[in-house]
Amino acid sequence: MPPSLSAELWPDVSPDAARRLMLAAVESFARRGFHATTTRDIATHAGMSPAALYVHFPSKGAVLFAISRSGHEQTLALTREAIARGGTPVESARELVTDFVAWHAKRHTVARVVQYELHALSDDEFNIVADLRKSIERAVRDLIQAGMADGSFQVADPGTTARALLSLGIDVARWYTDRTRTAPSTLGRQYADLALRMLGAREI
Amino acid sequence: MPPSLSAELWPDVSPDAARRLMLAAVESFARRGFHATTTRDIATHAGMSPAALYVHFPSKGAVLFAISRSGHEQTLALTREAIARGGTPVESARELVTDFVAWHAKRHTVARVVQYELHALSDDEFNIVADLRKSIERAVRDLIQAGMADGSFQVADPGTTARALLSLGIDVARWYTDRTRTAPSTLGRQYADLALRMLGAREI
Repeated sequence: MPPSLSAELWPDVSPDAARRLMLAAVESFARRGFHATTTRDIATHAGMSPAALYVHFPSKGAVLFAISRSGHEQTLALTREAIARGGTPVESARELVTDFVAWHAKRHTVARVVQYELHALSDDEFNIVADLRKSIERAVRDLIQAGMADGSFQVADPGTTARALLSLGIDVARWYTDRTRTAPSTLGRQYADLALRMLGAREI
Repeated sequence: MPPSLSAELWPDVSPDAARRLMLAAVESFARRGFHATTTRDIATHAGMSPAALYVHFPSKGAVLFAISRSGHEQTLALTREAIARGGTPVESARELVTDFVAWHAKRHTVARVVQYELHALSDDEFNIVADLRKSIERAVRDLIQAGMADGSFQVADPGTTARALLSLGIDVARWYTDRTRTAPSTLGRQYADLALRMLGAREI
């Protein structure tokens, strides 16, 4: 039996009921926004009672935080893995943009909640997610600076360029739909070529 | 007396009460999302009664549509004006990205509603906005193809590149805040340099 969608999205979350609630919440938040969604909406959409939701999450805010934290942890992990896999700065940048863009295209509904519902987190939750975001930006900036140091990249402002590279990937979640004809991995490779140009990489 | 913020945002809308309701709606939608906002919230925030709102708009959906249509008409107009101002494809692309990015930075709260609340429009309203979006993409694609034809740009896929250029600008609305230290026009010029690299423009 293939793993369920919720198990594929959140392999590190258990039990399955918690994952199913997270998936129901993603779909409810994406359709109506966080504020107009009730815990009852989420539980019903997951085929559970509101009481069953509270076994796993104290509030709908806690479900949002679980989705947001997991999404940021996953994108930080894929960022670090892609950079490590590349070997050279040029190849690391190519792997990074390909994977980062493909993640936001393939999981566009989850990614929209992860990227656009930050304002609904509590201050403590926001700070945890903000630290993960800073780590992602720092990993990309460090890669750009390594490429500047060894002559692979010609960049005026590493911070602005890092943010622009990430923007390209994040905005994919806004416009990508299940009807988009370009496959996530294809889009990732096309955007990697554009990103290497932004980095002033030689021989592209 | 300087013009009010709402008059600056919507110079083509009258009377002032309608503009004030649109500004109140932008702030309410940005804070709680469209679905969790009531017409009473909007009217109260504008210092009016719900009955006064209905004089200008039949529903909160009509306010959203007015905001969305106006935002798209403004970005289409600035796109066409910037391209016309440039003269050459390289200069047109520089003007376009500078202005498009600065618009999304300066008006980030309005731009978020314009860009992220499309799903809340009715089918007829969505189609009108979708036509404006297609016109914006077409103007950018036509510019890219003109630059390919005269040798100014080297681009693998004009459609993907047009979308990526617009994505860079649109995503600014997501992360730009009133506390961002880079001024909208400065950010616009930095992004124009990155965009010209994406276009494979010579002598950048």
